[in-house]
Amino acid sequence: MSSYFNHVDHASLLRDFPLGDEFLSRFRSLSRDELRARQEEQFKSAVARAWKTGFYRRLWGEQGIEPGDIRGLDDLTKLPVFDKADLMAAIEQHPPYGDFAGADPDTRVILHTTSGTTGRPQTLLFGPRSREIQNLLLARVYRFQGLTDDDIVHSVYGFGMINGGHYVREALLHWTNALMLPAGTGAETRSAQQVALMRDFGVTAIVGFADFIRRLADVAREQGIEPGRDIPVRMISGHIGREDRDALSAAWGGAAVYDWYGVGDTGIIAAEGPDRDGLYVMEDAHVLELLDIDSGAPVAEGESGDMVATVLFKDDVYPIIRFNTHDVSAVKPGRSALDLNLRRLQGFLGRSDNMVKLRGINVFPQAIGPMLAGLDGFAGEYVCRVKRDEQGRDDMTVHVEVAGAPDKVVYEAALRQALGVGAAIEFARPGELAPLTEVETRQKPKRLIDDRFEGA
Amino acid sequence: MSSYFNHVDHASLLRDFPLGDEFLSRFRSLSRDELRARQEEQFKSAVARAWKTGFYRRLWGEQGIEPGDIRGLDDLTKLPVFDKADLMAAIEQHPPYGDFAGADPDTRVILHTTSGTTGRPQTLLFGPRSREIQNLLLARVYRFQGLTDDDIVHSVYGFGMINGGHYVREALLHWTNALMLPAGTGAETRSAQQVALMRDFGVTAIVGFADFIRRLADVAREQGIEPGRDIPVRMISGHIGREDRDALSAAWGGAAVYDWYGVGDTGIIAAEGPDRDGLYVMEDAHVLELLDIDSGAPVAEGESGDMVATVLFKDDVYPIIRFNTHDVSAVKPGRSALDLNLRRLQGFLGRSDNMVKLRGINVFPQAIGPMLAGLDGFAGEYVCRVKRDEQGRDDMTVHVEVAGAPDKVVYEAALRQALGVGAAIEFARPGELAPLTEVETRQKPKRLIDDRFEGA
Repeated sequence: MSSYFNHVDHASLLRDFPLGDEFLSRFRSLSRDELRARQEEQFKSAVARAWKTGFYRRLWGEQGIEPGDIRGLDDLTKLPVFDKADLMAAIEQHPPYGDFAGADPDTRVILHTTSGTTGRPQTLLFGPRSREIQNLLLARVYRFQGLTDDDIVHSVYGFGMINGGHYVREALLHWTNALMLPAGTGAETRSAQQVALMRDFGVTAIVGFADFIRRLADVAREQGIEPGRDIPVRMISGHIGREDRDALSAAWGGAAVYDWYGVGDTGIIAAEGPDRDGLYVMEDAHVLELLDIDSGAPVAEGESGDMVATVLFKDDVYPIIRFNTHDVSAVKPGRSALDLNLRRLQGFLGRSDNMVKLRGINVFPQAIGPMLAGLDGFAGEYVCRVKRDEQGRDDMTVHVEVAGAPDKVVYEAALRQALGVGAAIEFARPGELAPLTEVETRQKPKRLIDDRFEGA
Repeated sequence: MSSYFNHVDHASLLRDFPLGDEFLSRFRSLSRDELRARQEEQFKSAVARAWKTGFYRRLWGEQGIEPGDIRGLDDLTKLPVFDKADLMAAIEQHPPYGDFAGADPDTRVILHTTSGTTGRPQTLLFGPRSREIQNLLLARVYRFQGLTDDDIVHSVYGFGMINGGHYVREALLHWTNALMLPAGTGAETRSAQQVALMRDFGVTAIVGFADFIRRLADVAREQGIEPGRDIPVRMISGHIGREDRDALSAAWGGAAVYDWYGVGDTGIIAAEGPDRDGLYVMEDAHVLELLDIDSGAPVAEGESGDMVATVLFKDDVYPIIRFNTHDVSAVKPGRSALDLNLRRLQGFLGRSDNMVKLRGINVFPQAIGPMLAGLDGFAGEYVCRVKRDEQGRDDMTVHVEVAGAPDKVVYEAALRQALGVGAAIEFARPGELAPLTEVETRQKPKRLIDDRFEGA
């Protein structure tokens, strides 16, 4: 009997990916050349595995690339980038796993999905070893940011099929000594119950998405529980927009707020440290490129570009080599006071494509069309408009051209059902939206008008 | 750095608690005397740990029991039984952990709660080693029931704070090679999405509560997906009432249905095997007593009694010694065709107290009073009435005495909010419920009228 634990040599993982003080001393002493040598070794293993998957054989083969062409990281830019659309197409053509699985029938597979709720969810596959490395890296970051053995951590990442909650639970449980409350979303533990738990257990740290964490502070006050006093939160770690930080800290009685970045396909890539002076890229685990959004060429240091991820330790089920996240960032030049030999990022600057994130849920305006097409009265054109209110909360209104007088409540319910989050519906007469969709002048009509950054 | 994995010596766990064919051969060859010797060794360790907790020092000390009095399993019946009310009282007096934690500050603790949704949730504490043993035991049972490396398992156990979903995910992920879809409840993955996932991934096994699994078959058919044909389910394992089995199997195209028993405090205790001829008690891990509901004395073989659990492997954070589950069962006499040296149970025969389980959620009629007390018009008396329909689904109506004409919708919403599951409200005039509550003749008014078994 082979168990999960046969695949996890924890002592060796900790030598390769140190935690705590050993993480700091490793990256104070390791030279860029030594780091590069470690990366090269891992990269070869990841590329060898990628050649065994239908996905990369196809992706790379279409470019005329042969196995001998990629000898090391110097050849990385010879490889094409790909993105979520390529993964979704692979899943569409080879359901439900895409052409990743099957190359190694002995591999034990952990399966989750991303949080996209329209259409077929994106499958995420993990092997035990690579899973535990990304767990360890997230634990490394929490501890880097100041988490101790005595912390009580409240997590609002959701569970179910979605990867996030499970990932964070495993990271905390397997690689820290902190105690975790795996509360999940408001659908899993009602908000009022969450704040009661936080008070009862004396929560000192919260992890999750900024919107919901801030909402919990409001709920606490509504219940007569004062954040910071009755719930002694001293740190918050999550995915923090630039505009969120101060409000979030204030809502929680001045707690220190730390940002980190990663997606389901990559695990954590970069994170702020105790200095909150840029996000340190975990370069013993990732090669992160910043590429010009239009040309795909590497940007100059300090300029913004798409983050394109190569995950060095993913050499089992699901290699990730040159994955374009379409999340935009820029390198932060110079060295920080912590004096680590790691590149830093400025943090998340925006999405280079059209995705909208509402209350932590990814919404793709393009995917709303097929859903509307099933409703009585839909006249064929629509456009989504996203605004951000003073509290930093994003809301979307879907403007829909309709014939006759269909029931708006039906549209709103169908939309909520399809998206997993509410959005407003505004009806328009046929043709009325043309100035917004530019349907008459563009090859593909515009489906998103983003009013969030108009004042920025 | 000590990780979770330092506490899990998987090779030694598999020697002590074998899986698969080794489980069968162990219990075909092990004599009752050899089994008893193993139990004695574990029992001593559990008792030693219990004496280090405030809870057992108090519980046992109140009976005048001293450490030297309990030398082995022959002394087990000298110890008092306790139940959930004692655990809740301990949590009330020593919030939020009860007086369990703290005895060993080096112990890494995994925290969950039971699924009770009224009032303060019951805390469940686990250490890594005992957690992995109960994970392993559940995996043992799934494999005993026929789960193979090739199965695709759909789990509808919920996550968040609740233990169940995490427990089942760990069991499958750590100790089987089957692939798992951790769908969770309908709140975590909508039912329509669940059946689409099941079809896309070719689910062959479903684990969870009978009610929701049967509901999924209805949802599948509503979506034009035929259970058994479009979703090739061949086995269902969960908590199966006697009346549920045939309907559940039929709903899923004739899938084989397997029952198992355990509670959050104990992990899995007993389960049906491939013969479905009684539930085999996992006696290398549990000592299960059946005690007369009124007298507390051991019942004769074949007679029904409260299941009182002693968990032999829980010698870290949260020992469980003589826990009265108030779930009633009876020993199934004789030997089965499988010829294992393990006692068997007849399965769950009912609750000896008042708890009601609605769609997998524990509802305590006594706990509804404080919630009603906050609503306008409540006149002080109420009683819950539980019925089972022809499909085996339980429904509860709360009869409430009200003054004036309060809004029933408000009551129903408050009830759903407090319970986490819907129940009907019927208003009555003040005094009208007295014949049902027997408020004038009993010390404690009756809060539950159970009409589920009237025809049985």
